Amino acid sequence: MAELVKVVVDAMGGDNAPGVTVQGAVDAVNENENIFIYLAGLKEAVSVELAKYTYDKSRIEIVETTEVIEMAEPPVNAIRTKKDSSIVKGMMMVRNGQADAFVSAGSTGAVLVGGQVLVGRIKGVERPPLAPLIPTDNAKGCSLLIDCGANVDARPSNLVQFAKMGSIYMESVMGIKNPKVGIVNIGAEEEKGNSLVKETFPLLKACPDINFVGSVEARDIPAGVVDVVVCEAFVGNVILKTYEGVGATLISKVKKGMMSTLRSKIGALLVKPALKETLKAFDLEQYGGAPMLGLNGLVVKTHGSSKAIEIKNSILQCLTFQEQGINDKIREQIQKRDVQ
Amino acid sequence: MAELVKVVVDAMGGDNAPGVTVQGAVDAVNENENIFIYLAGLKEAVSVELAKYTYDKSRIEIVETTEVIEMAEPPVNAIRTKKDSSIVKGMMMVRNGQADAFVSAGSTGAVLVGGQVLVGRIKGVERPPLAPLIPTDNAKGCSLLIDCGANVDARPSNLVQFAKMGSIYMESVMGIKNPKVGIVNIGAEEEKGNSLVKETFPLLKACPDINFVGSVEARDIPAGVVDVVVCEAFVGNVILKTYEGVGATLISKVKKGMMSTLRSKIGALLVKPALKETLKAFDLEQYGGAPMLGLNGLVVKTHGSSKAIEIKNSILQCLTFQEQGINDKIREQIQKRDVQ
Repeated sequence: MAELVKVVVDAMGGDNAPGVTVQGAVDAVNENENIFIYLAGLKEAVSVELAKYTYDKSRIEIVETTEVIEMAEPPVNAIRTKKDSSIVKGMMMVRNGQADAFVSAGSTGAVLVGGQVLVGRIKGVERPPLAPLIPTDNAKGCSLLIDCGANVDARPSNLVQFAKMGSIYMESVMGIKNPKVGIVNIGAEEEKGNSLVKETFPLLKACPDINFVGSVEARDIPAGVVDVVVCEAFVGNVILKTYEGVGATLISKVKKGMMSTLRSKIGALLVKPALKETLKAFDLEQYGGAPMLGLNGLVVKTHGSSKAIEIKNSILQCLTFQEQGINDKIREQIQKRDVQ
Repeated sequence: MAELVKVVVDAMGGDNAPGVTVQGAVDAVNENENIFIYLAGLKEAVSVELAKYTYDKSRIEIVETTEVIEMAEPPVNAIRTKKDSSIVKGMMMVRNGQADAFVSAGSTGAVLVGGQVLVGRIKGVERPPLAPLIPTDNAKGCSLLIDCGANVDARPSNLVQFAKMGSIYMESVMGIKNPKVGIVNIGAEEEKGNSLVKETFPLLKACPDINFVGSVEARDIPAGVVDVVVCEAFVGNVILKTYEGVGATLISKVKKGMMSTLRSKIGALLVKPALKETLKAFDLEQYGGAPMLGLNGLVVKTHGSSKAIEIKNSILQCLTFQEQGINDKIREQIQKRDVQ
């Protein structure tokens, strides 16, 4: 039997915790026999939820915590003072090697700060990026947007590391051979862009470890022209959020349009099943969580509004990450650069 | 009779020139009797197109030019060397007061450079922004995205001017009383953001001439929570292009979904007319061109792929701009700031 991959789940994180976090954990354990889960949270609340399910009791264990970090709390302060919260205690378990990965639907800020401060960076990694998969129209149906985390005002060397780590992730986890890397820009030509992009472009071009294809305009991202979309966090956040916003507004407009006349209402009934199937492929939440790359262990951040299936997918993602030895590959790549 | 508003149309600009540019000009003249148009372009080519239509011959005049600036030409060089192009000659007419406005579907780079260098900035305006209307779900159905032009790496004081000019535009041209201004940010709180946003935020807050409502996350832009969306050009370009890309990909997915089964195909026939109507309201191109604000005269850039109706709308937009005395208002606001 393969060694169990140990994942700490932040049972208290997210809008629907601990109901969906516990359910997602149980579903993951029931679906895959190589997963072991620590559920970190308030003992009473977690136990009540856990009692509802049937599962292999040897593979889920409650880690009792007494504090909860709220969504709106200032992250640095929360991480510093709430030592007995599920986020701090869970991340410390990853740091100490008791667990391989940490999954949370809680405060993004606290997870990003905790990842850096508690779990810690792989030696040589300058900044750990948060890298969600976004739905695109390429063969795999998704691309990696790296970074959309906390690294605003990044430097060119940070972006080069994002490109390397992103390539490793897409090749090892998503199985895309020699993934295409593009840098987000406001035009296709090399001389275009702001100063960060202009400085980063030649560095990426000179990088032997990645398949750099040049600039990518935001217009072409949804078509999936590149597999790894490199940008600094502010721009990445804007892309991710515009994706969400335009998607939500357009789909609500389509629905409203279908309900506007009697004729269209009848048509809507006929169209609905097929449409639902197609649009599911363009749902930002289907891919589970966003990994925070370059840490001594894996931290996965899922949507605050995550349902059980997203929690489950985020947990299973940790298995692939571990099996593929992503962190060893990242370590090797980053150190290779150090020797240059 | 009101004084005629004189608009130079770049007859050679855009993918479909001079066919659609001439047609758009004729349509504008036929629709509104207060418009006079100079069609700048190769005489032979423009004359042939013009001969196809019936219109008031006293209100369209060809301005002969012998050179054409291509879409892919390096802008600065093109503006410097092609003195007898429609862009350079047309902009010089605005500069010299022979015309009030210039409309082009040609090279964005050349139009932006020409606007700054040839038409020139209003005294006190640091950088002239390019400010398209984007479709949103608010009462007016659109918001102003300012800037998505050439001003990458902008300074905080630039963004404050964008906020002021954008407010004037939305109030005077779109009739939105006391328009809401937001700065694009990666969170709602004042302490969030990159250094540019953090420095700009308190300046906007302290600005008495605008209705600043704080940060706006990109996710909320399509819902129309603010009327004036302030950002620097790189971010603005990313928002605009992500809008286009996600919109196009989603609509193609909806169409594909509808055509996937026999049942859905029948439904699609019934749904189509109503859906078309709703989606038209979310079409980026319906609003005509993007004005470049803060210049001694008006420059409007429309899509390279513009059809006649967009050229016509861009021309008519110049009329409102002129009638509302936008530039006098901008001059007054910017100078007010100088006195502080």
